[in-house]
Formats: sequence, structure tokens, C-alpha cells
Amino acid sequence: MSHASDLVAAARREQGVRLPVWFMRQAGRSLPEYRELRKGTSMLQSCMEPGMIHEITLQPVRRHQVDAAIFFSDIVLPLKAMGVDLDIVPGTGPVVANPIRTRADLDQIGSLDPAQVGFVTESITSIVDELGATPLIGFAGAPFTLASYLVEGGPSKDHSRTKSMMAGDPELWDELCRRLVQISSTFLQVQIDAGASAVQLFDSWAGALAERDYRERVLPHSSQVLGSLTGGVPTIHFGVGTAELLPAMAEAGSDVVGVDWRTPLDVASRRIGPDKAVQGNLDPALLLAPWEVLAERVREVIRAGAKAPGHIFNLGHGVPPTTDPGVLTRIVELVHEEAPTIRQEAQA
Amino acid sequence: MSHASDLVAAARREQGVRLPVWFMRQAGRSLPEYRELRKGTSMLQSCMEPGMIHEITLQPVRRHQVDAAIFFSDIVLPLKAMGVDLDIVPGTGPVVANPIRTRADLDQIGSLDPAQVGFVTESITSIVDELGATPLIGFAGAPFTLASYLVEGGPSKDHSRTKSMMAGDPELWDELCRRLVQISSTFLQVQIDAGASAVQLFDSWAGALAERDYRERVLPHSSQVLGSLTGGVPTIHFGVGTAELLPAMAEAGSDVVGVDWRTPLDVASRRIGPDKAVQGNLDPALLLAPWEVLAERVREVIRAGAKAPGHIFNLGHGVPPTTDPGVLTRIVELVHEEAPTIRQEAQA
Repeated sequence: MSHASDLVAAARREQGVRLPVWFMRQAGRSLPEYRELRKGTSMLQSCMEPGMIHEITLQPVRRHQVDAAIFFSDIVLPLKAMGVDLDIVPGTGPVVANPIRTRADLDQIGSLDPAQVGFVTESITSIVDELGATPLIGFAGAPFTLASYLVEGGPSKDHSRTKSMMAGDPELWDELCRRLVQISSTFLQVQIDAGASAVQLFDSWAGALAERDYRERVLPHSSQVLGSLTGGVPTIHFGVGTAELLPAMAEAGSDVVGVDWRTPLDVASRRIGPDKAVQGNLDPALLLAPWEVLAERVREVIRAGAKAPGHIFNLGHGVPPTTDPGVLTRIVELVHEEAPTIRQEAQA
Repeated sequence: MSHASDLVAAARREQGVRLPVWFMRQAGRSLPEYRELRKGTSMLQSCMEPGMIHEITLQPVRRHQVDAAIFFSDIVLPLKAMGVDLDIVPGTGPVVANPIRTRADLDQIGSLDPAQVGFVTESITSIVDELGATPLIGFAGAPFTLASYLVEGGPSKDHSRTKSMMAGDPELWDELCRRLVQISSTFLQVQIDAGASAVQLFDSWAGALAERDYRERVLPHSSQVLGSLTGGVPTIHFGVGTAELLPAMAEAGSDVVGVDWRTPLDVASRRIGPDKAVQGNLDPALLLAPWEVLAERVREVIRAGAKAPGHIFNLGHGVPPTTDPGVLTRIVELVHEEAPTIRQEAQA
């Protein structure tokens, strides 16, 4: 690449009127070619085989002409690779055999050695080679979201054991998070070193927290992850339902803050401040709506994003598995065709 | 009653330093006496038998000495009473046999005739008699939340069919909501006429919406429900995850706005304005935390609520079924013992 991709330029607030677009969970169940390829292979198995990782990561780029690939993996993959007894159960999500409730349970969580995820390096090398000028986004789960799976033992509606540990045994909580900081940081650094052009830290469930708890017991750990990275690639920090947390999440130090559909991007940008780009934020539930209605919503997102110092178009959360992938392709076309004009007008 | 109860005084912003406290879902599975009484009776059956309604409504008042009873029912009960084919499936929630997707499906939803819920009037009469000076809060589901169950066919993570109908066929959506306005209004009015001292409109899932959609397609219907009521009892309007919606929800015209734990009550009160009281907002997930930690959180909620022109202490969402009811009793005691001093200091 002789110059930065649109995605990297947007993340660095060096964006013109071109608007990069990708979709969280673009590599996944919405694509028939993905469902075909995954037949007979479990989720975690498929995240450890370089050939499958390569194919699945590239599928949405070939199909939709998105401006970035997102590495095909799962936030619990590094834990699995370290030997933590967990699985991803279809229809449920990550299930941890021995949830972490006491100090003794911490013994399960050692350090991640890059050699344990050699398949990541191997697959990124080949992915980046095929992608050419299109950037690859690496990712990891943030300590809070990883900890919530480990403490609850699986997905949770209210994260009550997690919150109770944070409030009731902050030393244990912080020790768990310190270990997860090492794991998240290492997993991201491996991806950067292998050729990722940007990375996203997913703190998917941070929005379940009050700001006070987020600031005291989550922000320091996420800041450490983001601050540890070397290589100068831009970072994106994302969670859902974070209306009250946006300023605090921005303080964690990423270049870009991902925003769900509940907060318009211009409003989010004012809360986050002028030194960050934004990513988002079409409501994925609207992917079922008639095209003309959806197209108007896409234009609104473009318009609001034009007021931020940088904008990467995305959904406000992941692509639902039942999405018609043709709709995603049309959104990419619309963004590429119409964004320059809309952004120019909005910024005039 | 020769003078207004603490709850009604708080709702009317005529509160002194006394702080009324009750809990959403206080009548329910956290109580062993509830689980005992419900044995062999389905949820919807138990909501239609005056003897059971009476007992279950009174159980938490007797046990916890809360300052209000909440009528034992379910937001889908009026629909069931009208003959809509639905059930509450344990572990799942309301399941609707024939979800509403087209205009023809609307035929299922007629008008609620107060005679169809005669058991409500009958049970409230006896409940109010036993409660004496303690107020009874009646409730109903708001049109959006009721519609989301009817359109999705059951609980939904992303409400995508509901949002797509709102955006894609607003005429059908509004017609469905107009019918639900009549049902919610009638159900609340029946409870008021039978002796409820206050009513709460539950728009539990409104927080899934962007403000723009809420204002266009939800707020007018909720306003109509709240505006239709006669009898002069105070009204409470509640949803979860409503950080971005609080000003709009306040415009619907209730006396009190219920706030979840994500927004501190003093912040919420500033957004809502000086002409509303607030209700909330202890994080129910913290009910598992050690008592001293929890007690400090209760005090913080009291302190923040003291800055609002009226405060009713509650959780930020319902009591989880696994809650130790002894913890709820201790919270009531703490609120009654410490709130006057904390409020006096905070307001000084």
C-alpha cells in the first residue's frame, strides 16, 4: 500500500468525503457460502484452522466489496487456545466448564503465549496477501466482557455474578482482569504483527454497567490493553448500550469509538470529543425493513457521521444470522455511491 | 386515608424526607410463599383467580413492609382475557400463537371490555380493603412493548420484526398501537376505578429504540394512554436502557419517570425536568453482592434521588427470581431508617 486505506485514514481523522464501510459479523452465518463451509466443523475448530479462517475472512470481502476484512475468530478463542475448558454451544454462546468464582479458580487463567495461536499468524499472513490494499481488522474481547463469560459460566442477561464480584471482591476482580489484559493485549499484538491494519477491542456487554463501575473497575484494564499495543495501527473500541459510557470509553485511548444505534453519531461525537473518529451505527434490526426505508436510514447515518472528525460506516451491532446478504451488498453500494455527496453537503 | 401516602406524596412532588420504597416484581418468584402458592397453577391462571391475586399481591407487603403493593398480573393478561391465543411459557415468557404481521392479523385484537377483567375489579376491592393505608399500584404494558410481543410472537433480542413494521408499514403499526392504547387505557382505568392509588405504565423494551423512532411511533401512543386516565391518581412511566429516551419518555405525561441503574437519579432528573419525580434505581444484579457493599449502593441511590423533586425508591428493573428475599427486607429497613437523614443532608 502506497497510501493509507480509507478505513485507516478515517480512523486517523484524515478522511475526505469517502466513507469506508464494513459490518460487524460480516464473516458469518448470514452468508450461504459460510454455512456451507462450516458444515461438520464446530465454531472453535473452524477458528483454529488457517484454511477455514482464510476463506471465511475473505468471503464477505469478495461478496460485498466492503472496505475491510474482519479476522474470523471469536473473543473466547485465545482462552480456548490456552487450554481453558470452554466451548461455543450453537444457539447459546460460550459455555465455560468451571466458572471463575474464587481465587483458586484463577489458576485456569495463565498467560497467553503467542506460540499458542500460531494458526492466527499463519492465517493472517495468507489473508493479507490475498487482500492486497484492503485492510484487515484484528480483534479481541475486552477484559470485562471476557471476564463476564468466565465468571457467569456463559452468556448472562444481567451479569449479576460478575457485577457482584466487581463490587464485593474488587481484588479478585482486578486480578482476573490483569490476567485478561495480558491475553487481550497479546492476542491483538499477534494480529498486528502478522499484518492487521487496525484492531477492534470488543467490550460488547460494557453497556450493562453504570458509569461509576465502568470507570473504577473496567476502564483501567481496557486502557492498559489499548496502551500496550505497538505498531501504530489504529484502534477501535466498541460496546452496545453505551449511551452513558461514551465519554469514559473514549478515555480508554482508542482512535475510534464504536457506537450503537441508540445514539446518533453527531451526538456521540460531541460526547466523545474532537480527537476521536466514530464507527457505526445503523440499527441491524432494520435490515428486515423495505429497501427504500432502509436506504433512507443509511443516508441518515452517513449525514450524522459526516459531523464527526472521522467516520467508519458499520451497523450498531453485529449482522443478525437471518440477514439477507443481498441487503448488505446494496448498503455497501449505496455508501460508496452516495456518501461523497452526502458528506460534502453535510460538511458544507 | 386522611392524607396521601408517602408514595403518592413523592409522585406529586410533595415529599418530605421520608422515602417510599417498593420493588418491581416484589410479588413473585423470589418469595417461597409465592412459589408454594403457585404450585400447580399456571401464571396466567393465577392472574385470573381473585383469591390468588389477593394473596400474591399482599405477600411482599406483609414480608418486607414495603410502602406499596403492586397488583399481581402480567402485561399480556388483558390480551389473554380478550381471547388472544397466547400463553406465558416458563423459562421463555409470553408466546403468541398467531403473531401479527399483516393487516388481516389485526382481527385478533378487538377492544377490551371491562367486563372481561371483572376478576381484576373483584381482587382489587379485597386487596385495597386489607392494605388499608398502604397504596396499591396498578399497571399495564405500554403499546410498544405489548406490540413487540404480538409482532415477534414472543420475547425477542433485537425486536427486528417490530422495528421493521414501524419503519416499513407505519400505518399498520399505528393501527395496531391504536388498538393497544384502548386496551392499556382500559386495563389501567379498571384498576383505578377499583381502588388503585397509582398506576405504572411499563414500556419495558422501549430502550431498544432510537429516540427518533420512539418519538415518531411510540410516544404519541403512550401519551394517549397516560392522557386518557381519570381519577387523578399519579402515573409512573418506566422502561429499561432508556438513557437516550428519558426526555422523550417524560413528555408522555406521567408524574414519575422510572429510571434504570445506568443513569444516576440526579442526572436523570435534570434530563427529565423539574416537574417530574423519579423512581429507581438500584442495580438488581447487585442484590447478590455482600451486604455492606449493597448497603452503600442503596445509600448512593438515596443521595442521588434526594436531588430530584420527588423520589420513589425501587430497583432499576425487576427483582431477579433467585434473589434472597431477606436482602429485600433489609433494604426496606435501611431505606426507612436512613433515608430521612441522608435526604436531609443531601438537600441541605
